[in-house]
Amino acid sequence: MRSMTPEETRAFLLEGTRTAALATTRADGRPHVAPIWFTLDGDDLLFNTGELTVKGANLRRDGRVALMVDDEDPPYAFVSIEGTATLSGELETMLPWATRIAARYMGKELAEAYGRRNAVPGELLVRVRPTKTVAQWGIAE
Amino acid sequence: MRSMTPEETRAFLLEGTRTAALATTRADGRPHVAPIWFTLDGDDLLFNTGELTVKGANLRRDGRVALMVDDEDPPYAFVSIEGTATLSGELETMLPWATRIAARYMGKELAEAYGRRNAVPGELLVRVRPTKTVAQWGIAE
Repeated sequence: MRSMTPEETRAFLLEGTRTAALATTRADGRPHVAPIWFTLDGDDLLFNTGELTVKGANLRRDGRVALMVDDEDPPYAFVSIEGTATLSGELETMLPWATRIAARYMGKELAEAYGRRNAVPGELLVRVRPTKTVAQWGIAE
Repeated sequence: MRSMTPEETRAFLLEGTRTAALATTRADGRPHVAPIWFTLDGDDLLFNTGELTVKGANLRRDGRVALMVDDEDPPYAFVSIEGTATLSGELETMLPWATRIAARYMGKELAEAYGRRNAVPGELLVRVRPTKTVAQWGIAE
């Protein structure tokens, strides 16, 4: 097992169509986890969600989040991030990020259409500022 | 987007070396998420963790968990499970499951050695009984 450098962590997070598992806490204290499509802006993670989804509702109540991205093939690897989310419903801020996220996961041809579909009233742009990052290669070694 | 049948859900969860993202809640209400190696016993999910790890400590305090397994390639798919965990420190119960989990993720040759390494005092066998399952194919469709 070996820690990733900050550059390796960044490249790992941005590789291909890797999704993140986003964990939030429900009002009654139960944990919730869901897959998200995301990108980076410096060290911040950005993603979209609907304000009426479970994760959207949880984030509006409590911005403390945990995210995890992993490599499911031997010898395995993961990046774990804890941080605080800030939310924006401004469409002009949301559109370029929604388009960039769509380009990553749906391909460049569909990016503009998907970006427009996701940058609409009722959607949120979520920005997570990391407060703690753990990044490890070779979990099984 | 289309829901998986129970048989498809089971096959999806058991495919290859797919890991699960396990979400638990910390004492102060913050969410925690970590990758786990797991297998199934009927509908129950089983995995090992150390009782002094963050997830082990969280589970000992509050057995309410959420797990998520996803396919990170287009058109994407995921299984999300909420449930309640029960913990066992009995080595004779733990050893066969630890060996089976090791066989899945490390291969049959190493399974026995890894199983023995993980079925020791201080380790826990965690059994999650699902209370709610959501399983979807073709998220991007």
